[in-house]
Amino acid sequence: MRKIKDIGEFGLIEEFAELFPVTGDIKSGIGDDCAVIHRGDKWYLLTTDALIEDVHFDLHYSKPFLLGYKSLAVSLSDIAAMAGKPVAAVVSLGVPSNIELDFVLDFAKGLRRCSKKYHCPIVGGDTVRSPSRIFVNVTVLGESDQEPILRSGAIPGDLVAVAGTIGESMAGSILLLSKSINGKMVISDRAYKEKIVVSHLQPEPLLAEAVALHQALRINSMIDISDGLSSELNHIAKKSKVKIVIEENRIPISKPLREFCREWDQRPVELALAGGEDYALLFTFPKVYQSNISLCKFKAPITIVGEVRSGRGVCIKTKDGIKPLPAASSFTHF
Amino acid sequence: MRKIKDIGEFGLIEEFAELFPVTGDIKSGIGDDCAVIHRGDKWYLLTTDALIEDVHFDLHYSKPFLLGYKSLAVSLSDIAAMAGKPVAAVVSLGVPSNIELDFVLDFAKGLRRCSKKYHCPIVGGDTVRSPSRIFVNVTVLGESDQEPILRSGAIPGDLVAVAGTIGESMAGSILLLSKSINGKMVISDRAYKEKIVVSHLQPEPLLAEAVALHQALRINSMIDISDGLSSELNHIAKKSKVKIVIEENRIPISKPLREFCREWDQRPVELALAGGEDYALLFTFPKVYQSNISLCKFKAPITIVGEVRSGRGVCIKTKDGIKPLPAASSFTHF
Repeated sequence: MRKIKDIGEFGLIEEFAELFPVTGDIKSGIGDDCAVIHRGDKWYLLTTDALIEDVHFDLHYSKPFLLGYKSLAVSLSDIAAMAGKPVAAVVSLGVPSNIELDFVLDFAKGLRRCSKKYHCPIVGGDTVRSPSRIFVNVTVLGESDQEPILRSGAIPGDLVAVAGTIGESMAGSILLLSKSINGKMVISDRAYKEKIVVSHLQPEPLLAEAVALHQALRINSMIDISDGLSSELNHIAKKSKVKIVIEENRIPISKPLREFCREWDQRPVELALAGGEDYALLFTFPKVYQSNISLCKFKAPITIVGEVRSGRGVCIKTKDGIKPLPAASSFTHF
Repeated sequence: MRKIKDIGEFGLIEEFAELFPVTGDIKSGIGDDCAVIHRGDKWYLLTTDALIEDVHFDLHYSKPFLLGYKSLAVSLSDIAAMAGKPVAAVVSLGVPSNIELDFVLDFAKGLRRCSKKYHCPIVGGDTVRSPSRIFVNVTVLGESDQEPILRSGAIPGDLVAVAGTIGESMAGSILLLSKSINGKMVISDRAYKEKIVVSHLQPEPLLAEAVALHQALRINSMIDISDGLSSELNHIAKKSKVKIVIEENRIPISKPLREFCREWDQRPVELALAGGEDYALLFTFPKVYQSNISLCKFKAPITIVGEVRSGRGVCIKTKDGIKPLPAASSFTHF
């Protein structure tokens, strides 16, 4: 009997995409950040994410408020990846029946904080008993007045860029895990530590940034970096049927990440390529708009990391030459 | 420390409704079958439902195909409860990593069968590892060209009616549990058994029926019967700030349910009032349209069970007189 782990998470997604082909008003179905539904002069976006205790989060170091915040933030990041705007969200929460009421209310308050910050009202949900582990499922409905940006739109000649920082979330997770093992949670003894821990526990979706970037750069393809840069580069290359070449020394490595890596003997580029949950954006756009980057004034840095060519696959230029860059993730479900 | 079970599932929903009030385009939020979002000349509906192994389903007697089918059907029933039409659905599935691929594919095929039958394409999802129990979360986006029917619209003078049969699902669950305990799954030795087992394992949402009923009867309030008739009557009475009086001997008891109750020494009315997961519809409509019921020709029987009056609460007329009918459910989460 074949097991699910024999084909893996992405193999499974391909099986599902075959079982549920898109037709009619559905402009994009299984296999992109959001589903896209065309109605009148609007495009609606739908995305759903499940978070499971001990798989996606660890209550030894994630507080319920932050769990609530992050649960919504990660789904909003999928809306950002299509340059959409959030309309509303529904949330399912599964908890053991002996859980403290404050846990659930703190979770709801975290959810509300994120909901208010990004103008995405929570309009419904389902609260159920989960006999063992806690789970959260968030579905966000988004919208766009123009055709949403898919993973499949990259064109040879496009530049490849990253908005935001990458690798920090993975570093934060390493730090939290070690502190959790040591039984202490004093993490802010150095400024860099607080920054990378916040990157992991409270990611911010780049919603307004995505819209502004699209306006300035006419983005052709976009994806949010939830599984590490190498994995996302491969998704765009595969879906767009193009080759992507990036340069290792252009990958944006933040100062806090550099400091962490020095102290923890890690390679920052590896954390950026294979680490997940950054919720930065990876996108491609026509070279001709490159000078418009200066119009995009926001906190998240915009970094050009490479270019799109004819061909297939992803390559990385290092000081030792060009080599293939397969999808490598620090985390797979199956 | 207060525990979640101290306030119960409905207490928790009230807390959430306070934390997340509705504003602007959101016409209905937490506390109805679907959220309602107004956009242009359309109303969009959003509903989410989680199903957990050993809480909502038991794999000793529910096959993955039927689990897939039912997962979507129960959310579609929420769309039916607002007389809406499904647009698309997204599905999260959490399974252990050693699960057989066939389990997941059979689940997807059940989902697809229901998806095709009710014209609700599956457009996305999330497949994650769940270390212990299997869980499913389905979110359905629906739409309506007219203002959706809420629980809060019942008016004194309305008649109260049920579309479909009630109590059978609970009977099916009792039967399956006993068969499962006895280690045998031969359930169709009598026709009635097959019918009630199918009612439990493969409920059908009354989508087309709801739209036709609304057209014929100008429905003022509606809810789907997922928690037993008494619970749903109390929801409508409370939200609409009215009194509802029903007559015990009008409660629709199907022939298969009667046969089951005779053999299993159960009271059919009790199963109808307190049993859940029927996915029939409970609704109220102006008396003046009563004769239009004859225009509604479909399989699900339409039965008038009572009327709406000024006041508060729910009462039931039995041969012993009128008595209050509190919300009694065979199942609560906390």
